[in-house]
Amino acid sequence: MARFKLNDALEILSKTPKVLRMLLGGLPDEWIHANEGENTWSPYEVLGHLIHGEKTDWLIRVQTIIDHGDSKTFEAFDRKAHLQNKKEKSLPMLLDEFAAIRSKNVQQLQTLIIENEDLNRIGKHPDFGIVTMRELLSTWTVHDFNHIAQIVRVMGKYYADEVGPWKAYLGILQPK
Amino acid sequence: MARFKLNDALEILSKTPKVLRMLLGGLPDEWIHANEGENTWSPYEVLGHLIHGEKTDWLIRVQTIIDHGDSKTFEAFDRKAHLQNKKEKSLPMLLDEFAAIRSKNVQQLQTLIIENEDLNRIGKHPDFGIVTMRELLSTWTVHDFNHIAQIVRVMGKYYADEVGPWKAYLGILQPK
Repeated sequence: MARFKLNDALEILSKTPKVLRMLLGGLPDEWIHANEGENTWSPYEVLGHLIHGEKTDWLIRVQTIIDHGDSKTFEAFDRKAHLQNKKEKSLPMLLDEFAAIRSKNVQQLQTLIIENEDLNRIGKHPDFGIVTMRELLSTWTVHDFNHIAQIVRVMGKYYADEVGPWKAYLGILQPK
Repeated sequence: MARFKLNDALEILSKTPKVLRMLLGGLPDEWIHANEGENTWSPYEVLGHLIHGEKTDWLIRVQTIIDHGDSKTFEAFDRKAHLQNKKEKSLPMLLDEFAAIRSKNVQQLQTLIIENEDLNRIGKHPDFGIVTMRELLSTWTVHDFNHIAQIVRVMGKYYADEVGPWKAYLGILQPK
């Protein structure tokens, strides 16, 4: 049984900006810029990464599959590109930007995936070789969950030393 | 530098029901009742656990500290009590129940913690011995993050076989 359903994925993709707005909106800067140590990302930086993916990766790959199938390899995704941002934008600006581009991309996606058969189309990933549209769209969805979990973990760790002995009971505070 | 600030904790505790409503509301049952295998919890069951904590644990422990200090040990928290529920309630009912009791508890908490000194009050935990009010309130907050991360992880894993080779790039899908 295939678990992927386009409507579910669209619903989840549409909700993520609202989830992040609810999680992060209104919190003081020290929460937004906390991280897990050197070379780890803050919630602010994760949001930058999500926006970069909307601009340069997910929907472009969908389009590449539609237009070229597996005859054109996807561009590699620069997963650290957002770190070059100079933190000029405020968190509310980033939340608005993510909401706007995600909404636009979800609408566009609905015009590109017209029938169930489109999910079986294939493309070519620079590392993995042949992948399907279904796998790409599933990954886009799980990638959201991955980064929501990361944001929540970073926020939990901000209080790692505040919880005292309870640390032992909180899985989110344990080393991976 | 103490990172705990009562206003931040109150804000986060107040937002969690809305985060969960945004994450889970409207999704089909197979997502809500997915789990990570035997003896793991579904998002529905995590929500039951959070409600049980509101009813029997967090605020009661705050009150115990206020009334008895460390002369009365906290009741042990039955972390599996919610599994006895018969799933009679719908997800929207649970989301409403959690929102209502959390809101009530946060209001009540604001009447109990009046000055900064109250955060230094001590109580007695059945496993850990002496704990502080600050540690208890920090733990209540991080416990929310812990279970939001769990819910998101369970949902990500629901698509574990859908993402194909991308599984290797998604931390949320890796074994712990």
